[in-house]
Amino acid sequence: MASLPPSLERLIGLLSRLPGIGRKSATRIALRLLDSSEAESRELARSIVEACEKTIRCSTCGGLTEEDPCGICTDVRRDRGLICVVERSSDILALERTGRYRGRYHVLGGLLSPLDGVGPENLRIDTLVERARAGELSEIILALNPTAEGEATSLYIAKLVTPAGVRVTRLASGLPVGGDLDLADELTLGTALEERRDL
Amino acid sequence: MASLPPSLERLIGLLSRLPGIGRKSATRIALRLLDSSEAESRELARSIVEACEKTIRCSTCGGLTEEDPCGICTDVRRDRGLICVVERSSDILALERTGRYRGRYHVLGGLLSPLDGVGPENLRIDTLVERARAGELSEIILALNPTAEGEATSLYIAKLVTPAGVRVTRLASGLPVGGDLDLADELTLGTALEERRDL
Repeated sequence: MASLPPSLERLIGLLSRLPGIGRKSATRIALRLLDSSEAESRELARSIVEACEKTIRCSTCGGLTEEDPCGICTDVRRDRGLICVVERSSDILALERTGRYRGRYHVLGGLLSPLDGVGPENLRIDTLVERARAGELSEIILALNPTAEGEATSLYIAKLVTPAGVRVTRLASGLPVGGDLDLADELTLGTALEERRDL
Repeated sequence: MASLPPSLERLIGLLSRLPGIGRKSATRIALRLLDSSEAESRELARSIVEACEKTIRCSTCGGLTEEDPCGICTDVRRDRGLICVVERSSDILALERTGRYRGRYHVLGGLLSPLDGVGPENLRIDTLVERARAGELSEIILALNPTAEGEATSLYIAKLVTPAGVRVTRLASGLPVGGDLDLADELTLGTALEERRDL
């Protein structure tokens, strides 16, 4: 079988390491890059390097930013008494899209997972405790995934920050809005039942 | 709503122009690139530029290569009397994967499509006719998509090369191997019936 030119083969290999990209998509993307003008392909290459160079983590919340502290942390219209704790910076985007949150954030950088060797020292938990002790906070919202790791991490953090006198809450679990009761798994439906609200 | 850092936003915009990549996948890929080591991201950027710089089109067949003529055209074990005509260079990969073809190729670079302004002068048809007239050929296999454009292009080419005394064939149309007769569309089933073979 004829093989692809080595430089193209290499590009396909690198592209197929990206999330959600298999070998077939990688080949399609690589061929498209060769077909588009050289200026366009160079623009993409430059943009990758530039984004990696310019984007840093906010020293306060850990979110992605080009200026430290980030735009959210310095936004005076945001409630300084409220911190929402998330696993990754992409979770901030999801929460901002709801348009219902006007506090600040704290990115942990992962979840506690002893089996994978992720302990509290690998996460940005100490800086969260510092922020809690600084005295400005009224509430910490734990917005971690409703999984075993997420629950364990939430409980661990709650134990650490409660002594500072801060209210600690977590996101509600239950039926997805617009979802079908019939299709919900038994754990979700059970939680929705247990955590039912007065109308 | 908080926005992403501008350099990241730009990268996501460029990534989402790639085939099969929507805004959501582009965001995931961009964040992964930021998370991976800077060396890895730079490697991808360099590989894009390198592949675009090094890969050229074979002056004989039009396929992608780093050396002109390409490995397939110079391969002495390949039947020089057989040319398979394809729309794009990625089609060569598909045919090579079958392991059933040992001739050479000719990439048209598209299909005739008057509505999109693609005429014979926009395709590599003249070089194909030259190859047919050179006298070495015994057969030209037209492996174009079984669509209106593909059929029109096949007929156009057949008319041009038949005077050179070359046999012209096209790929069989019919049921996909392993497919379900029940699920075949009526056009495919009709063609399969018309082009039935003796057992």
